[in-house]
Amino acid sequence: MINYPNKKKSDNVKLTSTANRGMNFETMINQTNEFYLDNDIAVIYKKPIPIQIVSVDYRVRSAAKITEAYYKLPSTTDYNGIYKGYYIDFEAKETKSKTSFPIKNIHEHQVNHLRRVNEHGAISFIIVYFSVLGRIFFLDSKYIVDYYERSKTGKKSIALEEFIEFGKEIKEGYRKPVDYLSIIDEYYIKAPKI
Amino acid sequence: MINYPNKKKSDNVKLTSTANRGMNFETMINQTNEFYLDNDIAVIYKKPIPIQIVSVDYRVRSAAKITEAYYKLPSTTDYNGIYKGYYIDFEAKETKSKTSFPIKNIHEHQVNHLRRVNEHGAISFIIVYFSVLGRIFFLDSKYIVDYYERSKTGKKSIALEEFIEFGKEIKEGYRKPVDYLSIIDEYYIKAPKI
Repeated sequence: MINYPNKKKSDNVKLTSTANRGMNFETMINQTNEFYLDNDIAVIYKKPIPIQIVSVDYRVRSAAKITEAYYKLPSTTDYNGIYKGYYIDFEAKETKSKTSFPIKNIHEHQVNHLRRVNEHGAISFIIVYFSVLGRIFFLDSKYIVDYYERSKTGKKSIALEEFIEFGKEIKEGYRKPVDYLSIIDEYYIKAPKI
Repeated sequence: MINYPNKKKSDNVKLTSTANRGMNFETMINQTNEFYLDNDIAVIYKKPIPIQIVSVDYRVRSAAKITEAYYKLPSTTDYNGIYKGYYIDFEAKETKSKTSFPIKNIHEHQVNHLRRVNEHGAISFIIVYFSVLGRIFFLDSKYIVDYYERSKTGKKSIALEEFIEFGKEIKEGYRKPVDYLSIIDEYYIKAPKI
């Protein structure tokens, strides 16, 4: 595990600190994407957070100030881009649970989006960080779709054991904190398309 | 040309209305993307506008109100997605000029982004709407990169004649106002990859 600032406090943090901890996993993903970009390996970005802008103050023309806006529910996943000619699309989530990942952490339209892009030829997946365990899993969108369907009538979460059986564990690195492309190289790409 | 609300006023509008007119071209592109999505042809979205959030009022927890935020310069293009297994990436711009498109309307990092994704196997391009002429052109990112380089020492714009010679004109439609995938079908894709 890399030297992750909040790790020591994992077991004690309260729910209110979720945003910060989420930010840190997000930072790990973003740093990985920057490494890919800087080394010309892949071009993958986090999308901006969707905002509904209601009111803008234009008095200072050089820096229009948004004075009223609200968060919107995202229609798609947070990350997409291109790697070796493949369209890559994923969502990254963190859980403090030691045993399972609650399905409700992914919106239905995000599940539909992952399924859709996969049907059009994308490599689509989620990355889940079990922060207390310090383990990160890659899970193909086909499983997300199945588990999402299952959650409608049955289990509302994906068990750690299911990640171990059907997902791929991502090893942490220093310069590539969450090197998910290594999973894609190993399990999806036999020979480069381009 | 479709029945485009502001078209008649094209020659008289002042600079201040650019945003609205831009919105209308954006709406045309968004409607096209919705058609593609609804008919399971492609999954292509506009990215949210990047915003730097400074202050949020959480008093009403169900609807956190952003009270201070600023527009950020985008690092990438506005649109990306997947079509027939290809990663698609583009920027859409509008000009009221009848003769040329000013290069300064595209940021340098957007040009770099188009070049980068193209090197990784993307189909990347810009779509330029000459609103007064009612003509829409598709221009491959390779040309954008060249014209951008040229603008550093020479001409600061891409002439309409250059769009006619090196671009592809997009015909307007009713349900697909800007059917840019028809250009991709005709000039990029011989046989589907998937």
